[in-house]
Amino acid sequence: MAGTKDRILDSSAELFRRQGYTGTGVKQIVAEASAPFGSLYHFFPGGKEQLGEEVIRWSGDMYMQLFLTFVADAPDVATAVEEFFAGAAETLRETDYADACPIATVALEVASTNEPLRRATADVFHRWFETLTGYFAEAGIPTEASRKLAIQMLCAIEGAFVFSRAMRSTEALEVAGRTTAAAVREALVTARGNG
Amino acid sequence: MAGTKDRILDSSAELFRRQGYTGTGVKQIVAEASAPFGSLYHFFPGGKEQLGEEVIRWSGDMYMQLFLTFVADAPDVATAVEEFFAGAAETLRETDYADACPIATVALEVASTNEPLRRATADVFHRWFETLTGYFAEAGIPTEASRKLAIQMLCAIEGAFVFSRAMRSTEALEVAGRTTAAAVREALVTARGNG
Repeated sequence: MAGTKDRILDSSAELFRRQGYTGTGVKQIVAEASAPFGSLYHFFPGGKEQLGEEVIRWSGDMYMQLFLTFVADAPDVATAVEEFFAGAAETLRETDYADACPIATVALEVASTNEPLRRATADVFHRWFETLTGYFAEAGIPTEASRKLAIQMLCAIEGAFVFSRAMRSTEALEVAGRTTAAAVREALVTARGNG
Repeated sequence: MAGTKDRILDSSAELFRRQGYTGTGVKQIVAEASAPFGSLYHFFPGGKEQLGEEVIRWSGDMYMQLFLTFVADAPDVATAVEEFFAGAAETLRETDYADACPIATVALEVASTNEPLRRATADVFHRWFETLTGYFAEAGIPTEASRKLAIQMLCAIEGAFVFSRAMRSTEALEVAGRTTAAAVREALVTARGNG
């Protein structure tokens, strides 16, 4: 039965990131997951809202894990950032501009309408800020500059996802990747100069 | 009757940007607009989808107009950009983190699910790219660099809106404003150096 729960989480994550939380019904979720209808309430007694919260936390953490795995072998942090944006652009093109941020669509829908789900998105984003700050700090960039860089990078990619999906073009993602990588390089030079 | 149509557009725009397109019903729209139910179909015979498309185009163009009005008296483009981000942060705080981008929530919801509405968001974004490119070019920055700057700024503000609304904090918007203004200053220096 563990496989069923994973399939429900996985299908929900895909539907939420592509069409949002409000527009996704539980019937569509169980159909996509090839799961019996009752299994959703078996694993998520709180129904769609509990599922929504678990999906936000689970797919948000997965995405940061994906980033860390993706960049593990990069020769330096600036190249890592550049390659991550390029990878995101490739994924967008391969999925017909459907798969971008796992939780941004839901985050904007629930920010002013559903407090438990808003809190889940905020918790994920706080962890992204912290993990990415740590990642840049480990490369020798001072903590304050690392946090600024982390936020700059995350804003750039989230904004680029909005434009790239809507415009069916990766131009925004390419600009965002280049400008973020340049900012990382500059921060590294500054850090070394002061080191 | 012109007043009724405007009230419907205005209420729809507010509901769409705060809670999205899918989660907004026509009953809620006419209630918020204090309009008779039939008036919605009188002005928008195509119903919610036609209304959605008109709201996207209307509020998207209004937002760019707001930017141009807002920055008209700024002493220079970098200060203008800085003040626009600061103004956006103030609006967010004043509206309890509800009012950010007029069309981003809808854009993410419809990108993979509703082609006419996706095209409307794409058309608005294309005009934003062009208008902002023209704005920077008029300040003496070469066209290619101006377009890059325009996209960088729009990505920064859209991404910052996602984080600021979800985290109920304007930190991301402040970082995005500072880094974008710095990029504009750098582009101005480069342009003058080559001029």
